[in-house]
Amino acid sequence: MAVVMHDTPQPGPARLVALDWGTSALRAWLLGDDGQILDARVCDGGLLRVEDYAATFSDMCSDWLGAHPDVPAIACGMVGSSQGWREAGYLTVPTDLTIAASALTPVPHDRGILHLVPGLRYEHDGRTDVMRGEETQLIGVLRMLDADDLLVVLPGTHTKWVRISAHQVLSFTTAMTGELYGLLMQHGILARTAAAAAPDEGAFARGLAADPSRGLASALFGARAAVLDDQLAPSALPDYVSGLLIADEVRHLLPEHLPQQRIVLCGNAELCRRYSTAFAAHGVTPAASITGDAAALGLWTIAADCGLLSPTRHSEEVS
Amino acid sequence: MAVVMHDTPQPGPARLVALDWGTSALRAWLLGDDGQILDARVCDGGLLRVEDYAATFSDMCSDWLGAHPDVPAIACGMVGSSQGWREAGYLTVPTDLTIAASALTPVPHDRGILHLVPGLRYEHDGRTDVMRGEETQLIGVLRMLDADDLLVVLPGTHTKWVRISAHQVLSFTTAMTGELYGLLMQHGILARTAAAAAPDEGAFARGLAADPSRGLASALFGARAAVLDDQLAPSALPDYVSGLLIADEVRHLLPEHLPQQRIVLCGNAELCRRYSTAFAAHGVTPAASITGDAAALGLWTIAADCGLLSPTRHSEEVS
Repeated sequence: MAVVMHDTPQPGPARLVALDWGTSALRAWLLGDDGQILDARVCDGGLLRVEDYAATFSDMCSDWLGAHPDVPAIACGMVGSSQGWREAGYLTVPTDLTIAASALTPVPHDRGILHLVPGLRYEHDGRTDVMRGEETQLIGVLRMLDADDLLVVLPGTHTKWVRISAHQVLSFTTAMTGELYGLLMQHGILARTAAAAAPDEGAFARGLAADPSRGLASALFGARAAVLDDQLAPSALPDYVSGLLIADEVRHLLPEHLPQQRIVLCGNAELCRRYSTAFAAHGVTPAASITGDAAALGLWTIAADCGLLSPTRHSEEVS
Repeated sequence: MAVVMHDTPQPGPARLVALDWGTSALRAWLLGDDGQILDARVCDGGLLRVEDYAATFSDMCSDWLGAHPDVPAIACGMVGSSQGWREAGYLTVPTDLTIAASALTPVPHDRGILHLVPGLRYEHDGRTDVMRGEETQLIGVLRMLDADDLLVVLPGTHTKWVRISAHQVLSFTTAMTGELYGLLMQHGILARTAAAAAPDEGAFARGLAADPSRGLASALFGARAAVLDDQLAPSALPDYVSGLLIADEVRHLLPEHLPQQRIVLCGNAELCRRYSTAFAAHGVTPAASITGDAAALGLWTIAADCGLLSPTRHSEEVS
């Protein structure tokens, strides 16, 4: 096996420490000019596990901040929730996605300030919805696509369906499909019914196509019964349940009349593929599936919009 | 405070040790003539916790069997599943509810034989469903009511909706509504959103009446958003979620055209009350809510039908 050595292109100066600090994971990037990723890290220190936000932040970022002491830091996600490091508030929908500096919440830490991005809040007809972190991914998506008038679907633990027009978020809906999947397959009777999962595209397709007329709680029990009756392999049960859950979500939330080119998926590649398959059953093809680091680009864009980035950094460029 | 002493009526002889051995609980009764309950016990040694079925059985029943060595023992429920003490098979629906002796599965134990009741299996149009334990409650219900042509709803972890006519089970459907509630409120983000539950009938009614158009996974996230937005007290969230889940089940499974007098509820009193309230939103009033020990009477009936009960027990009557 040959090892090929490349000349590493000279990285530009560090300009921003950017964090997507969610419910389960903390992802951190050291960004250079134009949001170029110079370094990236991930740990499981999300809201569910973190005990000391300041210590976790220091563990993840103190070497970056030590090497680049003037570089600002920004974070989005559940770190700004009422259960997070500090409550970072919400912008109310409809709202522009150019976030003002005054909307950021500063949190002092031992090497400076961490700026928290606000979430979005939507209220309509007595129904409330919230997001925290996905607004930053949306900003990254809009920067990548240079498109408008979109339905952006961000699959995940709490999947978001977001209507965007004229660079404003008009409305959104959340479905806790990913959370239901996790609960069922980790803690429920289906966890005892399943064997070690073997990817099974056919089982996913069967789940997508299952009769929805008796409702989700009945369809989910049907997955167990199908295994007990040898109609479904225990190892195929996770994919079948994934199909049931995604089909139920898409059936309820995919608008009936929406030009195909307006739907964009953004998230984990495997989840985007699953949602894309579910859309196909309704004759819909997404215009794009963005599986890259939309959050990193979104954080960069927010920092730039808010004037956090100093225009030049000669001291670093010569270091 | 006066203490009134009653003469205890002389109990008849012990005739049957009867067990309802389910997923989470093991309930045991010592039954006398006509299925009269002489003694009753419950422990959490269900399928999810039990490690040694023989040892658990002995812990629960050895004193009864020691005092009444000729009394037969019978059990229904998950003890007869493939993950139970021994697989007790299924009767295939449509089936008569008079169970034959040959359908019981004998399990030897150190004081005799425990007879396991088979479950029911339903297959129709590619869909399979199963029950194990509820068939015995149904037999008890039919014995109590002396009625026929019923839709019997048995609310629980896995709620059963059972069509009965001419003393036959014609069809049934299971919804894992109770399991979903438990998973969400024990392990999910809603568990972190809720405060210690305070019974809130108004919150349950709001959950029942919530807009179902975006689907269950979206309505469930809406419960969290409503708490974050101060529209729902954290202590009222469990009842609100209960309302959402039961409404979704009833919306899908309550037949559109069914004479009201034909619906019977059987189960925990609080759950029967909740389902009854959900039925009322559809203009349906159940003919009866059976909250007593239908399983004990069912086990008695099966033992009698199968000839397990010896006709007289003079040796015991004089002991």
